Amino acid sequence: MQSSIYERDLGANEANHAALTPLAFIERTASIYPDRLAVVHGEVRRNWAQTYARTRALGSALMQRGIGKGDTVAVIAANIPPLFEAHFGVPMCGAVLNAINTRLDAEAIAFILDHGEAKVVLVDPEFAEVTGRALNMTARRDLLVVDIEDPSYSGPTQPVGTLTYEALLAEGDPNFAWQPPADERDAIALNYTSGTTGNPKGVVYHHRGAHLNALSQITTWGMPDHSVYLWTLPMFHCNGWCFPWAIAANAGTSVCLRAVRPEPIYQLIADEKVTHFCGAPIVLNMLTQYAHLKSFEHEVKCMTAGASPPAAVIEAMEAMGVEVTHVYGLTEVYGPAVVCAWKSEWNSLPADQRARLKARQGVKNQALAEVMVADPDTMHPLPADGQSLGEIFMRGNNVMSGYLKNPTATREAFRGGWFATGDLGVMHPDGYMELKDRSKDIIISGGENISSVEVEDVLYRHPAILEAAVVARPDPKWGETPCAFIDLVKGQQVSEAEIIAFCRENMAHFKAPKSVVLGPLPKTSTGKIQKFILRERAKQLSAEKAG
Amino acid sequence: MQSSIYERDLGANEANHAALTPLAFIERTASIYPDRLAVVHGEVRRNWAQTYARTRALGSALMQRGIGKGDTVAVIAANIPPLFEAHFGVPMCGAVLNAINTRLDAEAIAFILDHGEAKVVLVDPEFAEVTGRALNMTARRDLLVVDIEDPSYSGPTQPVGTLTYEALLAEGDPNFAWQPPADERDAIALNYTSGTTGNPKGVVYHHRGAHLNALSQITTWGMPDHSVYLWTLPMFHCNGWCFPWAIAANAGTSVCLRAVRPEPIYQLIADEKVTHFCGAPIVLNMLTQYAHLKSFEHEVKCMTAGASPPAAVIEAMEAMGVEVTHVYGLTEVYGPAVVCAWKSEWNSLPADQRARLKARQGVKNQALAEVMVADPDTMHPLPADGQSLGEIFMRGNNVMSGYLKNPTATREAFRGGWFATGDLGVMHPDGYMELKDRSKDIIISGGENISSVEVEDVLYRHPAILEAAVVARPDPKWGETPCAFIDLVKGQQVSEAEIIAFCRENMAHFKAPKSVVLGPLPKTSTGKIQKFILRERAKQLSAEKAG
Repeated sequence: MQSSIYERDLGANEANHAALTPLAFIERTASIYPDRLAVVHGEVRRNWAQTYARTRALGSALMQRGIGKGDTVAVIAANIPPLFEAHFGVPMCGAVLNAINTRLDAEAIAFILDHGEAKVVLVDPEFAEVTGRALNMTARRDLLVVDIEDPSYSGPTQPVGTLTYEALLAEGDPNFAWQPPADERDAIALNYTSGTTGNPKGVVYHHRGAHLNALSQITTWGMPDHSVYLWTLPMFHCNGWCFPWAIAANAGTSVCLRAVRPEPIYQLIADEKVTHFCGAPIVLNMLTQYAHLKSFEHEVKCMTAGASPPAAVIEAMEAMGVEVTHVYGLTEVYGPAVVCAWKSEWNSLPADQRARLKARQGVKNQALAEVMVADPDTMHPLPADGQSLGEIFMRGNNVMSGYLKNPTATREAFRGGWFATGDLGVMHPDGYMELKDRSKDIIISGGENISSVEVEDVLYRHPAILEAAVVARPDPKWGETPCAFIDLVKGQQVSEAEIIAFCRENMAHFKAPKSVVLGPLPKTSTGKIQKFILRERAKQLSAEKAG
Repeated sequence: MQSSIYERDLGANEANHAALTPLAFIERTASIYPDRLAVVHGEVRRNWAQTYARTRALGSALMQRGIGKGDTVAVIAANIPPLFEAHFGVPMCGAVLNAINTRLDAEAIAFILDHGEAKVVLVDPEFAEVTGRALNMTARRDLLVVDIEDPSYSGPTQPVGTLTYEALLAEGDPNFAWQPPADERDAIALNYTSGTTGNPKGVVYHHRGAHLNALSQITTWGMPDHSVYLWTLPMFHCNGWCFPWAIAANAGTSVCLRAVRPEPIYQLIADEKVTHFCGAPIVLNMLTQYAHLKSFEHEVKCMTAGASPPAAVIEAMEAMGVEVTHVYGLTEVYGPAVVCAWKSEWNSLPADQRARLKARQGVKNQALAEVMVADPDTMHPLPADGQSLGEIFMRGNNVMSGYLKNPTATREAFRGGWFATGDLGVMHPDGYMELKDRSKDIIISGGENISSVEVEDVLYRHPAILEAAVVARPDPKWGETPCAFIDLVKGQQVSEAEIIAFCRENMAHFKAPKSVVLGPLPKTSTGKIQKFILRERAKQLSAEKAG
């Protein structure tokens, strides 16, 4: 077939094609708004010109030390400026940023340094001790260890590096002529999943996906230019959901935060006129518990994900004047890729209906091509009836390149042209998806499926309950029954029987927990409740009873 | 060299790569916000579900008629729903949209239909007569001519097609399973420049550029979701600066407008609560002349380009509560690619200083990689001193693929990895670019580009004219008008009015000179006409008239 007139002499060239990269955002913002505030960290206030110069110095220093394309630069740090800067400086020399979860133990850190083949690691003083132990376990040779000095940490520490971060920057050229990636699908970041079983997997992001997802965060949230963003969400979580890059794109301000505690959060929102922040429902929950600390009057927007935010928490936040956007994602999709896009006509509904609508995960964001709820075997989409439970699949530019050095896991994750999330959900008639449970979180009692999420949602409405997790408990009669593990709000007293009675008043009786255990809940380093431990405890309860 | 760990098993696949296309915007918006108002046109009000169904029917009908990848579908229409719909329906079948300037004469339209090899042309009743004449001139065989019926036009008309637009839609499937482009650099649109010499050139856009520039319009302007956009800017101008696609991305509303007159504009802004509109400075000028018609109280934003907006016009608009954003671009860069990004600290400056700052063209938008003012020979950037005059060069994904079937012109336009705009300007110390002069003698009249060479060509056809030179004459209403300096053949006698009448017979009326000056022309020693002297004379004419 003859080529069409549009296929002649109209190809890509240097003038009409540029690799998509989030590095373009900081260059543009620093050139247009050099004097605008970029980073706030305690007494430190740096504008975009200064921040850009520091990222260029970092990229240049790394390059001079032989770090380049395909090399991994790890960082173990709280939400402090060096980690923000590394989101730009590391890819500027072509390397890949591996922000490591600061809650991991030495063994897990050593595994990641080895598996990711890190050539450099930047270490926050708060995590120097655990990193030091990890370094003793790692097989990495010639690993350049860099100590970050940070005034916001005053606890005990023990330098583990051969130079400081500031000394490294001093080696570099603040006018470094960094190059964009040769291919926009070159890797920009490596993020390890927390992995409830076995070793964590290294999820690889590329420049194109980071660029597009950062822009999508801006349009999804309707963020105006010059947003003031508070770092309540760890930057090591999917690169802070791509917000370091989004904030650079919209010439905003990053307000750093070492520890997620209510006092500094309320203080900074008021002092710095914070307009946006993100956090797991547990962070929102904490804030509502300390609502008396609130001293700001301006509008604030909050994005939450990680678990359906309990209706009571959303209501309490909004009563405080904080607009909550509910999103959903995974490490494999650059953080949130699905958003419960709010419709103005829902504003007039009663509070409980609004909360129920907002508890749904929602629709694809601008960067995601498709999300579907399908039969995991046939890959056929299930009816959008709000009932048919299937697996959630996604496609798009903000789906990971794959798992590093793990072609088997990568092949398993990609099925029939889709990324299989492993999460279960339903599609509502209006096209909004709702997460129901991971298949192992479904409790099957007397042949009926019970969603643990649904039971937890009811539990969270009880004013005395701080945290709740429901798992299956083996039962000789019913097969399984729901068992609730509950942590009460400090100072509150409620009996197990009262909790069960409360549930029976608020849901079908067969769904109500048959047993309740009070006490603190076990959590992963990222703050996720470790249901597999609770499942073990529930099993033991049954075994003890039977024995 | 061994490949890095990031180059193994991490390539693109169907799950993690999707072609960038603005078609994704309408699909997403129609699925999330089916009931939201998409298009307003007089009595016609259609939501996004209806609009998406119509675009799919159009794509399907075209495909059934054998139109597909690499085919051109032309439209000659005012800003009415069918032209908006064509921005989606045409590329849905893989074809390329060629929106033709409605102010062109039959000859120019025939040239474009022939050169673009149109297979279909959709014709607005207002332009049926001129199109009918063009069809008689064209060499196209089997051209499908479709009559648009439109209630907003009540003047005389003469159907020229074999079926109506609604009949064409009725042939198609409103659930058409259109496919995204196989390659995101596949052509999506063809836009003819007015052309400085001889025939217009066909500028080709691709899906990637349209997607990115549409998103860039949203972030550049800080457009929130659900903006209400009034179509004061012709959609045939660089695809309405990509706003049909941007409005689809932000689930906004397109308010159509047949004729740019102050009464309906003020009426629609008030009635439909318009939040955004674009227009040449002449449109703003007109609105300020009719400020007494204003009946709206809400905030409105306006984007203007085409010539520096006069300070008085900006001030008058802002006094009316309309925030003006000044942008700059060319057909070759998808419309505006440069924006005078406003800084809050400028708000406190005196009005004349603010106007001077806003008259500058500014900085690259989010989609453009780079803009520079450089020596056109050496391509070296000139000092950012606000003084050194050089040519403006651009690079980025919103730079055209090239000129259709014109590899020579394409090669000339791309120099050393840059697109050479042909415009002259200076770079200010703060990185804001300002347009100074046009190297190619373009006259901008009422937002339309007029090629002085083209007007001269016609003048030279008059038997009594010996020499002719056309330059821009400043005009309070139109910005500029063409002014012809003419030396007659010895012994011949022709009046200025006769020359203007001759031009109006031989070209689009808006291109005809508004003033004619008879007499010998100033020349260099080598016989070149000294246009800069004539420009001074034209300026004096205006000054004398004003004085």
